[in-house]
Amino acid sequence: MKKHIYIYSPSGAVRDKAAFKRGIQRLQAQGHEVEVDEAALASQQRFAGDDATRLAAIHRAADSGADVALISRGGYGLTRLLPDIRYKKISKAIHKGLQFVGMSDFTAFQTAVLAKTGAITWAGPALGEGFGMEGTPDEIMEACFDDMLCGQGEGTGWRQLRQSSSEDTKAIAGNSDPIRDSDSFFIKDAVLWGGNLTVLTALLGTPYFPDIKGGILFLEDVAEHPYRIERMLTQLLYAGVLKRQKAIVLGQFTDFKLTPHDRGFKLATVVQWLRQRIATPVLTNLPYGHVQTKVLLPVGAKTDLSVDSRDALLVWGHL
Amino acid sequence: MKKHIYIYSPSGAVRDKAAFKRGIQRLQAQGHEVEVDEAALASQQRFAGDDATRLAAIHRAADSGADVALISRGGYGLTRLLPDIRYKKISKAIHKGLQFVGMSDFTAFQTAVLAKTGAITWAGPALGEGFGMEGTPDEIMEACFDDMLCGQGEGTGWRQLRQSSSEDTKAIAGNSDPIRDSDSFFIKDAVLWGGNLTVLTALLGTPYFPDIKGGILFLEDVAEHPYRIERMLTQLLYAGVLKRQKAIVLGQFTDFKLTPHDRGFKLATVVQWLRQRIATPVLTNLPYGHVQTKVLLPVGAKTDLSVDSRDALLVWGHL
Repeated sequence: MKKHIYIYSPSGAVRDKAAFKRGIQRLQAQGHEVEVDEAALASQQRFAGDDATRLAAIHRAADSGADVALISRGGYGLTRLLPDIRYKKISKAIHKGLQFVGMSDFTAFQTAVLAKTGAITWAGPALGEGFGMEGTPDEIMEACFDDMLCGQGEGTGWRQLRQSSSEDTKAIAGNSDPIRDSDSFFIKDAVLWGGNLTVLTALLGTPYFPDIKGGILFLEDVAEHPYRIERMLTQLLYAGVLKRQKAIVLGQFTDFKLTPHDRGFKLATVVQWLRQRIATPVLTNLPYGHVQTKVLLPVGAKTDLSVDSRDALLVWGHL
Repeated sequence: MKKHIYIYSPSGAVRDKAAFKRGIQRLQAQGHEVEVDEAALASQQRFAGDDATRLAAIHRAADSGADVALISRGGYGLTRLLPDIRYKKISKAIHKGLQFVGMSDFTAFQTAVLAKTGAITWAGPALGEGFGMEGTPDEIMEACFDDMLCGQGEGTGWRQLRQSSSEDTKAIAGNSDPIRDSDSFFIKDAVLWGGNLTVLTALLGTPYFPDIKGGILFLEDVAEHPYRIERMLTQLLYAGVLKRQKAIVLGQFTDFKLTPHDRGFKLATVVQWLRQRIATPVLTNLPYGHVQTKVLLPVGAKTDLSVDSRDALLVWGHL
């Protein structure tokens, strides 16, 4: 199905122009009409143009009449723009059918749009890293993207990690770890929200952080040491955000380096620690994050979650 | 003047035992009675003992009857303990004359104590990095520590950085930069608070973040890229914290690495960006942070600030 895809750069400057081109060519080869924003390759310091340039690009994307507005890449830059984004314009464009897709730094935009308007955006690939990679783009990501385009991506299922070993359990102050493998439950009509843990947490306490009660919060991150992941989760915990959710769904946390000082402290330690502190179920291994194989997720959509032991299924139905 | 100094470990495990010993010997050589907490050298994963051990160590420090409770080192670990700290006990000990001294991860404790009790703690050295370093400990740090011990450290003066170059100014979207070098002003009786930017910001939105209006907020950080420093400052900005202060005082931000992708984006860019967004004065170069030459600062104390062009002076009088 031919779609009109608008490429723009709200965050970091595009440095890998080959990936940018490959991404465009691949989308074109799939029959799509690809429109590239006039400032998509702008560069000012580390940003894709100065603040006014990137802000205008976002608003051009909203006005483009395209089916999809896809970011060229993440990086850093959206947080700066949040007070000046015209949220009503964004919301109107979304209700007319525009699907905003992106991740990482884009979480700032998605979270703010949700807080300000409740409109749905998609957590998914960026052009460069998603479609522009050397070799073949990931099949699952592409299939999920196509499903979104056709309105057929109505959910996603995955298998959680096994519980961490008893050795880890002992290591945490002797607290007992409930056997969550056997947990089965069903959650209905919960708002799915989340994205990059660092970017999301950096909005806590600001007008761009939505007050979601009874939601399903999904989180991923890249190049953050587990102790930093724990500190951010602790902030969300102490702020009461986690306990207000019906489920916390952890995606992929990648590219960090443990050190000799850690002596066994690792990501599983953090998950276990968190589970001891809240009754809200904490799921693992959602195929989403800074990895090739990732699903697309509708941020702000009402979603059902079924969990049967390690198997989990998110269903949002027809959007 | 001989003082009783209690050494304990609320955060990371002490790995550099030589520095630990040297620090104790130096304090003893200055005539002080040094008491070492029973768990000061405990180690569990990356922590100085499990959560219960570190929590008990904090409470033993409060009960020690010492003049000063000095952390062995920073690291990570206090954030986890905040809900279980007995704040009344801490506050009572402080009012009886105990001076809690520390920095970095210790900012979590200091900020929470301020939020929960209003009691004053000292931002200053840790044992290992401060007194235990190879060679001679920094003279200014030692003099400030002695002044605190004797109740004679009644203020600190320093010289701010020159304004960044006009080149930087142009780089920021053409906005004009007010000539702050010539600014002179005086602020009276403002609560001094702050510490490590990352640790402080990680408490925003939680019950451990104090609601200080008309204060003087000082900040430092280590190994955080300027774009991350900006993102944290932005969070404090959007949350309304910065504009509620009478001054923001930036200390030393050290040990980060710029990359080719930054193309001129640097710490000065962040300072300039911030100054364009708030009317609150933003001062620079406070001699405090992850550096040897650092002053001691009373977190929670009423403080006067005089600024005359680049010269700044904080005065808290007799505490």
